[in-house]
This record gives sequence, C-alpha cells and structure tokens, in this order.
Amino acid sequence: MGPHPAVAAIRLAVRRVLHDILNHHHTPADAGRQALGGYPDPTAERSPSPLVLVACSGGADSMALASALAFEAPKLGVRAGGVTVDHGLQPGSDLRADEVALRLRELGLDPVVSVAVTVGRDGGPEAAARDARYAALDDVALRHGATAVLLGHTRDDQAETVLLGLARGSGIRSLSGMAAVSGAEGRYRRPFLALDRQTARKACMVQSLPVWDDPHNTDPAYTRSRLRHEGLPALEKALGKGVVEALARTAQLSRDDADALDTWASQADASVRDATGVLECAKLYALPPAVRRRILRRAAIQAGAPAGSLFARHIEEVDRLITGWRGQGAINLPGKVVAQRQGGRLVIRQG
Amino acid sequence: MGPHPAVAAIRLAVRRVLHDILNHHHTPADAGRQALGGYPDPTAERSPSPLVLVACSGGADSMALASALAFEAPKLGVRAGGVTVDHGLQPGSDLRADEVALRLRELGLDPVVSVAVTVGRDGGPEAAARDARYAALDDVALRHGATAVLLGHTRDDQAETVLLGLARGSGIRSLSGMAAVSGAEGRYRRPFLALDRQTARKACMVQSLPVWDDPHNTDPAYTRSRLRHEGLPALEKALGKGVVEALARTAQLSRDDADALDTWASQADASVRDATGVLECAKLYALPPAVRRRILRRAAIQAGAPAGSLFARHIEEVDRLITGWRGQGAINLPGKVVAQRQGGRLVIRQG
Repeated sequence: MGPHPAVAAIRLAVRRVLHDILNHHHTPADAGRQALGGYPDPTAERSPSPLVLVACSGGADSMALASALAFEAPKLGVRAGGVTVDHGLQPGSDLRADEVALRLRELGLDPVVSVAVTVGRDGGPEAAARDARYAALDDVALRHGATAVLLGHTRDDQAETVLLGLARGSGIRSLSGMAAVSGAEGRYRRPFLALDRQTARKACMVQSLPVWDDPHNTDPAYTRSRLRHEGLPALEKALGKGVVEALARTAQLSRDDADALDTWASQADASVRDATGVLECAKLYALPPAVRRRILRRAAIQAGAPAGSLFARHIEEVDRLITGWRGQGAINLPGKVVAQRQGGRLVIRQG
Repeated sequence: MGPHPAVAAIRLAVRRVLHDILNHHHTPADAGRQALGGYPDPTAERSPSPLVLVACSGGADSMALASALAFEAPKLGVRAGGVTVDHGLQPGSDLRADEVALRLRELGLDPVVSVAVTVGRDGGPEAAARDARYAALDDVALRHGATAVLLGHTRDDQAETVLLGLARGSGIRSLSGMAAVSGAEGRYRRPFLALDRQTARKACMVQSLPVWDDPHNTDPAYTRSRLRHEGLPALEKALGKGVVEALARTAQLSRDDADALDTWASQADASVRDATGVLECAKLYALPPAVRRRILRRAAIQAGAPAGSLFARHIEEVDRLITGWRGQGAINLPGKVVAQRQGGRLVIRQG
C-alpha cells in the first residue's frame, strides 16, 4: 500500500524540485559561495553532495515540506538540512524555535539551525519580518554552502499574494506573486506553489506531525490574515470555488508577460537615446505605451529613485511629458529625482 | 453659484469625451455608415453636426450620463439622442422602457429610440443579455448615423469586471476590463470609467432625476451582483478602501501591456514560419514564453478554434510540444482543431 495521497503529493512536489536542483548543480557549491562573500564552509570539502535546506516555521506547510524533503533527499544523494527563524515577536518564541529545531532533527535533517533575528520597522510589520527572515536564511545558506532553500508557500499563499498585489494597482509585475525559483543564483525554491494548503495540512495529520499555528496568521491586524479569513472566502462565495486556482494561474501568466515586456523595454532602451545617452521624446512617443512607461521607470530608478516608492501615477505623469506635452514644468519623483522636458529631450536626473 | 460637485464631475467627463469625438470627427458620418451596411439616414443630409447617443437603462449611472449629455452637447454643436433597450426579461419591461424613453425626451434628447430585443441563452443569462443589447445599439447607431454611443459604466463596474476576469484566470487580457473606447470605429465611449458610482447617483439626486434600480443588480443569482454586494465589500474590508481604484488602474495597465504583447506576437508571427507558412519549433522555442503562447493562440484561432472556448490550459498543452517534447500525440483543441508536432514543425489545423 502506497502513502496517503496527500503525502504522495507533497513528496512528488519535492522530488521534482530536487531533480531540477540536481540538473542545475554542475559547479561545486563553494564557487558561487566564494563569489558571494566567501563564508567558510567546514563541510564543503568532506562532502561533494549538495545540501538542500528547508525553511520551517513549525506551521503545517513547512512541516509537511520538511517531512517530504527528509524522505526524498537521501534517495537522490542529497543532504537535507533545516533552518528555523526566531523573529522574537512573541514571548517564548525562542523556546518555540528550539522545539521546531528538535522536530526537524527528529525527521533526520542535518544540519538543523535555529537563528534569532531582530525585526526592524521598515515597510510595516509584515515586510520587516520578511526582510529579517530572508537575510537570516541567506546567511545560513551561505555559511553552510547550501545549494537551495525550500520554502513552504502554497497555492493559497500565492492567491493571497496576487490579491495583495492587485490592491497596489501598480501593474502586472505586482500580480506575478511569488516565483517558483527566486533569490541570488535561484537559491529559493517553492515546491508547493501548485499545491493547496489543505493538502499540506492533511499530510501532516496522516504522518502524525505536530503542527504549530502562528497566531499572526489569524490576527485580523494583519492584512494577509484578513484576506485569508474574510476577503478570499467572500470572493470564492461570489465567484466560485476556482478562484484560488485562477489567481495562481494569473500569477504565472502575469510573470511571463512582465518578463517579456521587461526584455522588450531593455532592448528598446538604447534605441530611444541620442549619442550622449539622453532620451529622445519623438522616439519614445513611437513606442507602445507599455514599453515606453517601462523605459521611463527604468530611467527614473537609474537616476536614483527608489523602486519601492515609484508608483504608476509617477510614471504616468512623466509619460504625459511625452504624450500630452503642453509646456509642463519639471516633475518631482521620489529620491529627489526630477524629470524634465528640454526641447525634444527628456532629462531624468537627481536634482 | 456653480453646479453641485457631482453634477460638475459628470459634465466634465462627458465634455472631455465630446471634445475627443469632435477631434476625430473628420469624415461625414454617412461614409462609414455606407461601408458598414448602407442603412438609410433621413437626417444625414439635412444636418452635418454629429449625433451622439446615450444608452440608458433608467438606472442612476446612465440617467446621470443622459443628463450630462443633454447639457453639454448643444454647447458644442453636437446633436444628442438616446436609446433604451427592452430586454423583455421581466413583466412590464415594455412599460418601463417607454417610461425611460419619456424621461430622455424630457431631458431634451432627440431622437429617442426604444428597442425591444429577444435575449437568447448563449454563454449564460448575463452574456446573452449583453449580446442582444449591443446588437440593438449597433443597429440603432447605424440607422440614425450616430457618431458615438455613450455607455454609463463607472469605475465600480470596471473593478467588478476586472475581478470577473481574474476569476477566469486566463491572463492579463481578461484583467483589462472595459475600454474607454471600443466597438466598430470606436463607436462606444465610456465617459464615467474614472468616476465612481456614488457620484453618478448623487448627480441624479441633486438634479431630481428619478432613478430605476434594476432588480437584477441586487439578485444574488447573478455573479456580478454577488460580487458587488458581498465580494468587493469584503475585499475592501481586508485590503482597504482603495481597492476599486487599484482594480481600475490594473485594468488600464493590463490593457496597455496586453496590447503591446499582441503587437509583438503579431510582428513575430511571420518570423517563426517556414516558406510554406508552417510554424517551426526551434524558432518558437527561442521566443519569450509570453510571446510564443500568444502566437500559438492566434494560430489555433486561425485554424478554427473559437476564441471563447480556448483556455490557458489548452495553449499550455500545445506549448509543451515545443518546450517539453517527449513524443506527445496530437492535442485536441476546441472547434475540432488539432495541434501536432511533426519533426521540427508544429502543425495546427482543423482535423
């Protein structure tokens, strides 16, 4: 008798990703590591087999992921380890992290690392926690020479991320959700992006894995939590049960579209500048609006505007210097960047 | 004292569209009309000033639009008329249509036309009613030589349309919502696409215009109605009040992106075919996925697949003949179209 369907599903998802990691694992792990900062790795010389880490909060998604990695990795000659991050946001979070680390060891993962981080305030509580977490994961991955770090995000997380992007109204890149492969050298992998949360939970249950429910996930103070428990269910009630799947598919299609348009903008960039590299209005005007606005956005960022503060409405205003010219003055952008039409040229620079 | 801000807002929106129509109104109205089917127009020779019609259900949005058109058109030398469509879906809908027509005449619109249509069943009740309505509006516009037909869709309608498109999960074209200008020769115009529903309702109130609330709009049997009264409010509660605006902005950005990618696909199409016009797999493979999939979709439609039945999953399966070739058999698409790899060629034809 084979494993429970939920367990079979999580293992298949992890097996596919491990195969993909092995296919791309041509160079020794330490080559890239040296280039990225040269952390020492005591295990690198003893073992040539790649190390894959799972990032685990103790929640159902990442516990299921850890169990599947522990099961599949040895069969493929991959070393499997685990990391848990203590965000220090709740009393007793250190004990919690120790407990998760213990469970990861019980699954047979080695090494298992527990890291405490200090969460700042930049960009709100959720963004600050995420920034601290990824910095810690990057650090652990480099220190241990890990080829990849697996993250437990499911299709439901993806759907929520798309809706959060939609609420920004800043275009299709923000509808792209999370990538299956991301980070420096494609370090981060999300094997469960096409799997629903219920499957991960079920897989923990049938494997008798204890699961910890982060109180943040149900705290209505957090946007994502409100979306999960109120917004998305209401949307499903209005639009039908396929909404989560549709949102996840939208993410993938939007990502491909955004990539293609970025490629186009990057190729067209040189062709709309004069010999000194200044943008020419007539040439910009001839481009499709979607491509022109991407070139303008790139130019603003190159001039020093912080990408995160540069909104669609900023770019639209700069665009009107090209498409709706009626003698407007200079346009102020974030990061003290100024966009100004000078004759047939568009000058974007830090003022 | 000027008009109430809501009235000023609806008038400004209509004035802008009328200016745009006049700027593009170079040729006599009957030239295009002849080309499109040659309906006689008894008024064409007597009056060279363009005729703009408003499509009015009697609801707040289109009544506000009718009032603004009646106010602005004469000042710009534009003739203003109105159409109301009796869908025959409710008892007494004919009397209702007569009443709307009467109100349009009271606003000074001329001609005012009331048309009864028969709603079929294709594509569900909402799509069938829409198809019948636009066929009737097209007909009236042609018969009366109208330059444009104004539609009362607001920013809220746009937000709902984006969410409906999102639920299909079929990519950014379905996130584009409704266009400000659409239809044959850009006949349909939506002046209120950046205006909220509340403004239109307020404008009716302060002008003492009686408003009819279509019971369909609150009937939970209709997807759009559920979205309006439950889905969108829940989403606003989770994500904040800016959701409607964000969705409307997403529509515009998605539309521009989809247009640019369609242009790219259309330009690349010839370059991926051999001398006999058959698609070459190696050349398709070299394109960005977003462009390749659009070319595949175009090819399937050209071969006879009905666009409305061709989903993202169909195109993904055809795409795997290029990107994941492992000897798959022929792939059946809607409309008896078959896609098949033959050596280095991809053949898509009706089987």
